[in-house]
Amino acid sequence: MMDQIIHWVREDPAGLGRPQLSGTLATEPMAVPMMLLNLVEQLGEEDEEMTDKYAELGDWCAHRILQHVQRDGQVVLENVSEDGKELPGCLGRHQNPGHTLEAGWFLLQYALRKGDPKLQRHIIDKFLLLPFHSGWDPEHGGLFYFQDADDLCPTQLEWNMKLWWPHTEAMIAFLMGYRDSGDPALLNLFYQVAEYTFHQFRDPEYGEWFGYLNQEGKVALTIKGGPFKGCFHVPRCLAMCEQILGALLQRLGPAPLGSLPAVPTREGSK
Amino acid sequence: MMDQIIHWVREDPAGLGRPQLSGTLATEPMAVPMMLLNLVEQLGEEDEEMTDKYAELGDWCAHRILQHVQRDGQVVLENVSEDGKELPGCLGRHQNPGHTLEAGWFLLQYALRKGDPKLQRHIIDKFLLLPFHSGWDPEHGGLFYFQDADDLCPTQLEWNMKLWWPHTEAMIAFLMGYRDSGDPALLNLFYQVAEYTFHQFRDPEYGEWFGYLNQEGKVALTIKGGPFKGCFHVPRCLAMCEQILGALLQRLGPAPLGSLPAVPTREGSK
Repeated sequence: MMDQIIHWVREDPAGLGRPQLSGTLATEPMAVPMMLLNLVEQLGEEDEEMTDKYAELGDWCAHRILQHVQRDGQVVLENVSEDGKELPGCLGRHQNPGHTLEAGWFLLQYALRKGDPKLQRHIIDKFLLLPFHSGWDPEHGGLFYFQDADDLCPTQLEWNMKLWWPHTEAMIAFLMGYRDSGDPALLNLFYQVAEYTFHQFRDPEYGEWFGYLNQEGKVALTIKGGPFKGCFHVPRCLAMCEQILGALLQRLGPAPLGSLPAVPTREGSK
Repeated sequence: MMDQIIHWVREDPAGLGRPQLSGTLATEPMAVPMMLLNLVEQLGEEDEEMTDKYAELGDWCAHRILQHVQRDGQVVLENVSEDGKELPGCLGRHQNPGHTLEAGWFLLQYALRKGDPKLQRHIIDKFLLLPFHSGWDPEHGGLFYFQDADDLCPTQLEWNMKLWWPHTEAMIAFLMGYRDSGDPALLNLFYQVAEYTFHQFRDPEYGEWFGYLNQEGKVALTIKGGPFKGCFHVPRCLAMCEQILGALLQRLGPAPLGSLPAVPTREGSK
């Protein structure tokens, strides 16, 4: 199975049944190397043999993801050419802040395994802070779904909606960034995202999270599961955040707990 | 070219380069027979030879479109099985009021050519009045983009947005329905849609129309052209409405003009 996936990604995607139409620009969506990097990390978790087996593949994935940092490090673009150049038009300018943050924590795990603090700082700057500062809605809070690197209007109808999963990925990314770097600014960003997330997405009446809010934070789709919202992002986020927070608290010991910002409550606050 | 299109639609779509993935439900989206019917009508316009050549194809298209009327005539569904049955799940319940109204005026042209008043009444009831009454937002005005036949929440993120083209198609459909039936209720619906449309979509400052509003009618995308909004629906609507209105005025003569509702003005009104 893994060999088949690697073949589709690195050699020939024809077997996926979606042949390129003639005239289509050859592009690399960030989704492909980032999901594969996550798979490599999952397979190698506490398994030295697997880690060794897929080490070169992990390096390749990280290299490909890092190619999406463009314009002298000022933007992360969702689609680049296969040789890592910016593509023309709105396809090339397309940005997905939640995806960048998710790739960010995949890369933080990679940098930790490599023991590479310079790479770690680069990831925090480019994959955590850049998408947060460009992607956070200053008026209503929350991360935009899509953006345009030139601040033009995106062509996707849902660009200004607030989706649950960019927020779960941002929570993991900032908490992991704090754990790995000790930079308190990242802990504050974790709290800012968590406060918005628990206040806006969680349904205190019937449980679970809504997935799709309009720009102002009003629930736009009342479904709690659908074609793209399954039992995945929410439990992964909660489990990972609990695990990281637990490890951080153990590291801190009992004394300095009072100095942490208050945990978001059920009611939350703007 | 036309032979190739007919082959793709009626025999084998493999040449389109989008092979069915295994496990995909065989569906007929209404888009296919309705666009082909429009093509047949365009080719046959003032060309008797072409009209004869594609008469059987036009009948086939109309038959396939009419199969999308389901549940004893209570709903028009965007996707049905190839033998004209309702499909399970949200794919089967999916409704697109603007598409139904557009198919409505394609069918009205067909019924006029056939000289079939019973079919005309059926089209007005099912393809004009049903989607308008279910699809018009009672709170903020305008036609929803997508709906669910069981009034469940659609799974498309943009379901509650107001797009320009369902409104241009509704204007044509109601004006044509009035021309062909003389039913004044249809003229009033034309005015209701036109008033919303000119008030909400038109940019009085820089000209042209915006294409994408949120549910409340606020411009969500500032682009006036994009991957799906070209120089097509607006000029087609304006040209056809002007043509039909001109013919109606000629038919009425100068006297009864004062009895028509006021023409929407630049400022419009709620």
